[in-house]
Amino acid sequence: MARQTRQRILDASLAMFNTQGEPNVTTNHIADELEISPGNLYYHFRNKDDIIEQLFARFEERMDAALAAPEGRLPGLEDIWLQLHLVFEAIWDYRFLYRDLVEILSRNRRLRLRFARILKRADDQAHAVMRGLSQAGVMRASSDELAATATNVLVIATFWLNYASARGDKDEHEAIRAGIVQVMMLLAPFLRDAERLHLNTLTRAYIE
Amino acid sequence: MARQTRQRILDASLAMFNTQGEPNVTTNHIADELEISPGNLYYHFRNKDDIIEQLFARFEERMDAALAAPEGRLPGLEDIWLQLHLVFEAIWDYRFLYRDLVEILSRNRRLRLRFARILKRADDQAHAVMRGLSQAGVMRASSDELAATATNVLVIATFWLNYASARGDKDEHEAIRAGIVQVMMLLAPFLRDAERLHLNTLTRAYIE
Repeated sequence: MARQTRQRILDASLAMFNTQGEPNVTTNHIADELEISPGNLYYHFRNKDDIIEQLFARFEERMDAALAAPEGRLPGLEDIWLQLHLVFEAIWDYRFLYRDLVEILSRNRRLRLRFARILKRADDQAHAVMRGLSQAGVMRASSDELAATATNVLVIATFWLNYASARGDKDEHEAIRAGIVQVMMLLAPFLRDAERLHLNTLTRAYIE
Repeated sequence: MARQTRQRILDASLAMFNTQGEPNVTTNHIADELEISPGNLYYHFRNKDDIIEQLFARFEERMDAALAAPEGRLPGLEDIWLQLHLVFEAIWDYRFLYRDLVEILSRNRRLRLRFARILKRADDQAHAVMRGLSQAGVMRASSDELAATATNVLVIATFWLNYASARGDKDEHEAIRAGIVQVMMLLAPFLRDAERLHLNTLTRAYIE
């Protein structure tokens, strides 16, 4: 029963943070929403940052799974699409973290270190995938270009939803598809002509 | 005298927002910092969002100037460096807007429209520059690639400082140089071999 209440608090907090923005949700709002007393909420969590830390742990598991490399072979362009879908879905499910990223991380040193670790892992993974494509001769890039592009992949993935919101995009699910295309298009100009043309065709079909 | 106080309030607010983050600064903090009464502050500004709107107007002027195209000729790669410097310096001087962008825009419909207009103008300008490079034969890109790259230029420029902060970069002035390089490297793979090599060399010299 206590365990169930704890779970309900986490689920409601995640939903409210995602729709209203974390800065606009207090522990009192969460208790109100669940029709429990603030005292009951504080029995399970020390404060709002404690709730955020528990949600972050769930998010971290999702991202670690999404960033796992295919085993025993080099990843191809199709693997990248799949991996991007998993990453963007994880970001979407925990989008409150990304909406107010700098502010949330500024309040909690542990989260700051853990988020930096996720970025580091994603950077390594993007780098490895592109090195694989270069070795297979599918991609042509200098090592500086590979490093810069891996980082640009991360910046676009991390902040795409914020950008779509600032630009005034209304349909958020469409925004996710557009974000995946933006990341794939970072790779397009490095590809051999055949693969480059194929990617242009695929992305056009994907958006329409 | 009243005019001078008004100006002092704006300057102090900008400095405090930039260093502490806008969500962590109240009008009382600003009045304390200036050693004036809250009543005196409210004589000049209705509330914190009123201060933000005045600062936004200054920022908007800076960005509009930074995004002006060179007159009477097509821009070249050197113009892009210069323009990126002006844009990144404007973003740096008003970085509080970018740190908590979605939250700040969510509170004010006017700012939302005005920020979307700046993005639109920057997108058009990035697009025009790249079309110019394509027509001059310096760049080779499909029209989908041009559009996607113009947008990626904007996302990187808009969120680079947040990314550098989330990744744990310490030196913020170095972060700006790195951001300019990240944007230039978006263009590298589209360039003719000679210009591409030249850009790789320039960016390496620029970072070291």
